[in-house]
Parts: sequence; structure tokens; C-alpha cells
Amino acid sequence: MGIKQNIMNKIRKALISVSNKKDLKPLLNALSKYKIDIISSGGTYKKIKRLGFECIELSKFTNTPEILNGRVKTLHPKIYGGILNKRQNKKHLREIKKNNYENIDLIVANFYPFEDNLYKKADHNKIIENIDIGGPTMVRAAAKNYNDVVVICNTNQYRRFINELETNKGSTSLSFREKLAEEAFMETAYYESNIFKYFNEKSENIFPQKNIFSGKLISQIRYGENPHQKAAIYSKNHHQDIIQLSGKELSYNNYNDLYSALSTTQLLPNNKGVAIIKHANPCGVSINQNKVKSFKEALESDPISAFGGIVSCNFKMNINLAKEINKTYFEIVMAKGFDTKSKILLKKKKNLRIIDTSNFRGENKFNFISKYNSILIQNVDNENFSRKDFKVVSKRKPNIETLNKLIFAFNVCRNVKSNAIVITNNYKTIGIGSGQPSRLDSCQIAINKMKKFQSLEKNKELFAASDAFFPFVDGIEKLVQSGVTAVVQPSGSKNDKEIIKFANLTNTILVFSKTRHFNH
Amino acid sequence: MGIKQNIMNKIRKALISVSNKKDLKPLLNALSKYKIDIISSGGTYKKIKRLGFECIELSKFTNTPEILNGRVKTLHPKIYGGILNKRQNKKHLREIKKNNYENIDLIVANFYPFEDNLYKKADHNKIIENIDIGGPTMVRAAAKNYNDVVVICNTNQYRRFINELETNKGSTSLSFREKLAEEAFMETAYYESNIFKYFNEKSENIFPQKNIFSGKLISQIRYGENPHQKAAIYSKNHHQDIIQLSGKELSYNNYNDLYSALSTTQLLPNNKGVAIIKHANPCGVSINQNKVKSFKEALESDPISAFGGIVSCNFKMNINLAKEINKTYFEIVMAKGFDTKSKILLKKKKNLRIIDTSNFRGENKFNFISKYNSILIQNVDNENFSRKDFKVVSKRKPNIETLNKLIFAFNVCRNVKSNAIVITNNYKTIGIGSGQPSRLDSCQIAINKMKKFQSLEKNKELFAASDAFFPFVDGIEKLVQSGVTAVVQPSGSKNDKEIIKFANLTNTILVFSKTRHFNH
Repeated sequence: MGIKQNIMNKIRKALISVSNKKDLKPLLNALSKYKIDIISSGGTYKKIKRLGFECIELSKFTNTPEILNGRVKTLHPKIYGGILNKRQNKKHLREIKKNNYENIDLIVANFYPFEDNLYKKADHNKIIENIDIGGPTMVRAAAKNYNDVVVICNTNQYRRFINELETNKGSTSLSFREKLAEEAFMETAYYESNIFKYFNEKSENIFPQKNIFSGKLISQIRYGENPHQKAAIYSKNHHQDIIQLSGKELSYNNYNDLYSALSTTQLLPNNKGVAIIKHANPCGVSINQNKVKSFKEALESDPISAFGGIVSCNFKMNINLAKEINKTYFEIVMAKGFDTKSKILLKKKKNLRIIDTSNFRGENKFNFISKYNSILIQNVDNENFSRKDFKVVSKRKPNIETLNKLIFAFNVCRNVKSNAIVITNNYKTIGIGSGQPSRLDSCQIAINKMKKFQSLEKNKELFAASDAFFPFVDGIEKLVQSGVTAVVQPSGSKNDKEIIKFANLTNTILVFSKTRHFNH
Repeated sequence: MGIKQNIMNKIRKALISVSNKKDLKPLLNALSKYKIDIISSGGTYKKIKRLGFECIELSKFTNTPEILNGRVKTLHPKIYGGILNKRQNKKHLREIKKNNYENIDLIVANFYPFEDNLYKKADHNKIIENIDIGGPTMVRAAAKNYNDVVVICNTNQYRRFINELETNKGSTSLSFREKLAEEAFMETAYYESNIFKYFNEKSENIFPQKNIFSGKLISQIRYGENPHQKAAIYSKNHHQDIIQLSGKELSYNNYNDLYSALSTTQLLPNNKGVAIIKHANPCGVSINQNKVKSFKEALESDPISAFGGIVSCNFKMNINLAKEINKTYFEIVMAKGFDTKSKILLKKKKNLRIIDTSNFRGENKFNFISKYNSILIQNVDNENFSRKDFKVVSKRKPNIETLNKLIFAFNVCRNVKSNAIVITNNYKTIGIGSGQPSRLDSCQIAINKMKKFQSLEKNKELFAASDAFFPFVDGIEKLVQSGVTAVVQPSGSKNDKEIIKFANLTNTILVFSKTRHFNH
């Protein structure tokens, strides 16, 4: 920018047209102080007059009536000549004079509340009526001509603008105008993304030729996955799905882990599931009517890895469980609400992040991820399956209880990074093998975990789940040799028949799922 | 939509204002056939006349001159009254009549090529001049009033529109108009996202209050990470960073893996690195001047996991290496170009995906990922480190060669999913432990891999890297007991001193990196 930064522009005439009319008074005071003429119309005009300021009516200025219930008022060449002319361009100057137009140096506008109406689930006609045409056009024109014109399109910019006017005695600097132009296009792009989203969701055109994803800043995060990476978190809409009640600021890895936790507990039966997460992988999961027991079982799955992890409960926290949790060091405790006593107890640990997930719905249909120049988008894998989605292929048949236990193992396995193997006993994990390029290695890791932390009583019922098919017999063989008696896995291997044969030979229950669940 | 779908609207008057003037003739023929009057201006007007069609000049229609080098031409109440009035609303009808306005039933517009000018790296003034104000406003107004008005904003819609006119003898259905309105807002939202991106990159305001990410569809993918998930891939800009030369369509997991491969080879010295990737994790990496040897060494690291994986070379493929690669089953072979012979040979395997990465620059600064209602965004962790970025903390000092070998191990480790441990010999991996909640387990997995696939000659020089600090001595102890003599790791543990002490006791070289590299 260099020298240009100091180019000051005196404001002589402003056009104000705002849907959100808050905080106008201090703005009008500043405009009045620097003898800036104001043009306005409709509700904004009335408000300005009511606040006791002078104002020229837009229809008088353009000598054209406002029509179509306000659909057409500012869309006039006198307005756009006044905004868009380059003040240093002699041809422009001549044309403005010839047509009896006047410079408009400041646009203050904000838009019909399209997004609010979306989230209020207003009816279609009301949503359509809230597509602002005039406002964004004025803002875009002023932002394009920021070299000469100031654009304000959000009430939160008033204070900065007034300071700028005061500092420069009624003028603004080019750098200030450029910054506002950036913010103007941020607002128009965001506004437009919401309109597109509305039409697009209505048409169920899931992969349009051009896709636009937008979000509102929730907060800058201290750093990313690592301290040398800058990071931030945005919300896709106005709704925040988690609420932090206490503790240190959430880190990037905390967010990553806690969404893995929510993804895991979302698939567990309501009101009794506990998952402990570390490095985005479950390291212990259990469901039990007795909530303390549920937690203890999850912890016992791998008490060493659990250290410094996340505890996620799909129920309301109570004091007994809080006491039990407090015995171990965790970074985060999540629950669907906390009763008063448990909240008081847990808050005593100043660093412990306490997260209320009552608002979490887990309803989003698609997730996206950027990789260099590409954006990958896919359906979320969060369907809840029932017994009918599984097919028993072994001679030995499971009863309903056994099938339910296998479904539990399978649902945990879906949230373990691939290749994933999960060994369970009843409704608790006792060995989790994650993140290996070879499925056989994941089997061995799950078995090793089990051997390390479990008392291997005889007749303990061991079940296992695999996130994808076993390519050979060796994986399932390893599990059966370690005591596993029932296995659930997707089908699809060339060796499926061999695997079924092996199951029958060893009297193992073998169940095929309809779906595979890679998760990287 | 129900009954509404059949509401047909006859088109009587069209306004055409296009920056991209291709394919107008068949469109004009159709308009002429159905006796649709055309209004136009400037270059579009001239083009229409030259093609031999009748056309009313816009400035005559509005009785207002075009000014400011075309910056203001269509922004006129007669145009917007004509577009925006609700044809069924009596008040609107009266106002249109009273002002002597006329209905405009069709808008054909496309915008100044803002994005093209961005990628051509046009100068700032030219880019700003290419912010279209009039075009998007007409398109937005027509799309808002799609109940009565047809909007066309891309030349690729002409054919569909002509068919619709033919089918309905000069009319269009409401469902057709609604679909075009959706596409109109797709175009305006995308257009606006690029303008914001330009201003935003210029200001280096990395985490704006509202953020907009947009992309162009490259292709729908057959399915997502799993067959029951729908998926697509978009490009952030016009530039595609990989080119598929042959083989089956890339799957979602292929894309995921190949970007992991590029991330890994990007950190290797130019023109001699090979990485083999499976489930987004490196399972073998090597650098060697001899390209065949480089590949063989990478393969030997874990030949079982490599099966069905990705081979990625950061150099041009030659026939000798292609022959060697052909001996094993891989899903993808990637290289910076392929010489003719190697291309012919590799293409013989019809399913093998051959990817040319010559265009890959890996320059993006930020990656984002959506998780339910949130979008996480962070800097890409792709900085290349030199020896000065590492600090020797043990009594035993590494020479330059040793330090370079440790840096190789460290750079591989950065791309292994956390917790990650990598054991190397010279410039090749021989044991990779990935994706464990416990660092100690990752050590054990890396050691097990090494024992499984390596001939353990005496005096083989074993080095190790860890993506984050060892919390206790036990991890490094396990590695040293298995023969490791030099270790690189980030610092930051409470037990750093203990670990240095242990290194000195065992005469191990210990080097601290400045940065941690979690990667989930």
C-alpha cells in the first residue's frame, strides 16, 4: 500500500439503509458533527428522524417512488452513479455533473435477516422475502469503489468507524476503507452462502457443481494439532452443539478428540454408555445401567492410555460417578448435563474441561475435509443398526443377547481408526487394536491389550468385531486362539467361505454386517 | 411443490447482459421463435445485432444513459420493477402500470471473469474492475422472484433452457425456474466467495469472523470411505494438482491415501524418495540415489502391509523401477511424470491407477475439517527443517550424516498417525508404529515390525524418531534395548532430564526437535 495508506477521503454524503436499527444514535451524532448529509428511506428514514437528525428522503433524492413493498427503492442510477464513480477520473466526473448526480461517500447498510429466518424455520415465502437485493448491491458497489467510498455493513463496525472519523476529522484512510471492503465481501459472501444453502437443501442436490461452505468464528484456538500451527474453530450455523462449563480453554486436539467421543457415544444405547478417548481413538467403552460401573469398566479396558484422555457419558453426570472420575487424571469430562453436586466437585479441578453435550444432536449429513487443493466430502457414517442388519453365517447361532453384544462391539469398532479390531466381554471393551496398515497386527494389538489388563478367568465370554472383512483366515484364527467365541465383521473377501468354514470348525459364532466401516 | 410444479409462465421480454458471449445464437433463435423481446446493452447488444436479431437498447428502454465505463447501466428502477414485481400481486401490478414499467420475464447474464483474473494474476486495478455489480444484482433479483422470472447465469444452462421452452411452447415450469434460482445463488455465492478470498488473502486476516470455503466439483466419487457413504471431491481453485493417467476411478480412500503419500514425499529430499502408504499411514519409506533400491528398501520395511497400497515417488518414473513395482500388487503408483516405456508397461495393468504429480505444489497454508456442527481450521504442518532446527542434548554427539539420518526418521514420523514411532536404518524405515493411544505401545509395534521383517545383523545402525516427547523413560528404554543408538524427539516432558540421563548412561545419541508433530 505504501504512500496510498495516507490518502484521506472527506465524507460529505451518506446513504443509510439498515434492517437492524440498533446503535444508530452515536453513529448519527458523529455524522452530524462532521456535517455529513444523510439520505435514507422507509423505516430507517423514520428512525433517523425520530432520533432527531436531519435526513433527505431517498425517493426525493432520486425523484423516483419506492415501489413493490420496498423490493425496489435504492436500485437507481443516481445512487449507483454517486457510489461507483472514480473521483479521480475526469470522464466519470463529467458524467456525474451532466446527469446532475452527486457523490455518495458512505454506505451504511445491513441486510434483511435471512439467516435468522432460516433458523427460526420461517415459512418459504417469508424466507424468500428476506433475500435482500438492494442492501448487498449497495454494499458491493461501495466495497468495489473502496478507493473513494466507505462501506459499513455490520453494526459492530460503528465504533471503529466513529473513531476513524474522530482521528481524521471527518475523513477516512484508504487502509481503513480497504479493511471495510474486505469485511463487506465477507458479509455478502456469507449471506449468499446461506441463500444457496437454503435452495440447495430444498432441492437435495447434494453435490452441486460449485459448493460453498461457510461458518462463523467460535474462537481462535491457542494453536493447532501442534504449537507451531495456528488454528481456529468455526460453527456451521448459529447453534453451538457443545457448551464448556469450566476448565482450561479447549485445544485443537481436545476438539478433535471430543468429536470422536461424541461419535462413539452417539451409537451407544441411550443413558448408559461411557467412552474414554485418547488421540481420537476409543481406548475403553462400556454400557451398563450402573453408571459408575459403566465408567469403571471403560477405564479398565486400558487404564494406562486413559490417563489424560476424555471421558464421555451419554447421560447426566451424578455425584457418585464424578467422585469416581475424579480419582484419575482426565483432560475433559463430557456428559448430557451435570447435577449440581457433581458440577461443584468437578469444577474444583481448575484445569479440567467440563463439557455439557445436552445440545448435541449429531444430525449433520455430510462432513468435509480439505487436503491441499482438494476438498473431500462424504456422508457421515452414523446410522444406528438393528439386529436385522446383520446376518448369521455360522452353524452356531447367537441368541438375541449375544447378537446385541456383538452389535455393541461393532459400533465401538466403527469409531476406532482403521484397521480396527475390538475385543469385548459382555458390554465392555477389553482389547482395542487401532490404526494399523495390517489387520492381523490390529488383532495382535487388541489381544496384547487384553492380556495386559484383564484377569483371564476361564469361561470368560470373549467377542470380537472387525471394521472390514478379514482378507484371510489368519486374523480370525488369532482371535479364536485367544479365546474369542463370536465374531462380527463385514463380508466381501475372496476367502469368506474359508472363514465361515474356520468358524464352523472351531464352533465360533460368525455374523456378517451389511456395511463396512473404515474410518481414517 | 405438488400442483405448483405445473404453473407455466410465458416469457415475453428478456434482458441479456453477458460477459461470456459464446453460444448465444441457438439461444437467440429460440427466443425469436417464441417472439420474446430482447433488451440489451454494450457489447452484448452489438453481438446480438451482429448475429442478426432484433434488440432494444437498454439505455433507450430506461431512457437513462450508460455511464462510468459501464459501471452503471442496468441499475435502474424500470429494470428492477420489471424483474421483481409479483405478477399475482395487484398492488405491484398497479405500481408497474403507473410508472410505465414493463415485466421482464427472463434474465440472461454472466459475470465479469473475476476468478480468471485472479488466477491470471492480473494487477489489482484490473481485478477490482472485474468485480461485477450489475450482473449479480440482476441474477439475484430474478432468482428471488423465480416464481415469475427465469434466470440464466451460465452458458451451460442454455441447452436445458431451450429444451424447456420447446417442451412448453415458450413457457417454463415453476420447478424449472426454482432449479435455475438455486443455480443462480450457487453462482453468486461462489463468485462472492472468490472476491472475499482475494481481499482476505491480501489482508492476511487468517481467521475472519465469518469464513467461506468454496470449491468446484471435480467428480462424484463412487462412494465414500465405505460403500454406504456418498462422496465427492471438489477443487479449491481451477488448478488440479494430480492427473490420473490410467486405471480405475480413484476411490475416496485412494484420495485420502494419496494425499498422505504426497505429504510424506514432500518432506523427502528431491528426486530420490519413495513412500508406500496404506490406510493413510506410511508403511515403508526410503531415500536412495538408486531409484530401484529406494523402492525395494521401502517395500522391505513391511512387505505384507504394502500389498494393495500406494507407491509414491518424488521423481520421474523409469522403466527399471516400473518393472520392479510391477512385481507387487499396488492400487496406485504416483510419480513426478512417467517416461514412455514405464507408462506403457504400467498401463498394461488395467486397474492400476497411475497418477502424475508433476503439478503438485503442496503450497496451501491451511487445511480445514468439519466435525458435526463445527469446522476446524489449522496451518498445514509441512515446513521443511534443517539441522539447525535440532538440538543435541546427549553427551554423545552425532556427526552431520547421523543428524541427517535422524531428520529423515523424524520427517517420516511426522506423517505417521499419532502416537508415532519410526525406526530407521540409514535412510530407510524398518519399523513403524502408528495410531496408538499409548506411546509405549507404538514403540513395541515398531520393534515388532522390525523383528518380523529385518535380518538382525549385528552392528546394524538403528535410529528412532518419536512425533511427541516420551513421557517416561520406558519408551526410549524399550527402543535402546532393541538396538537403537540414536533418537530424535520433541522435548517438553517433565521427565526430559531423566531421559537425557538415560541416553547418557546408555551412550545413546539424543536430539531434541523444536516442534511436536501430532497428526491424527
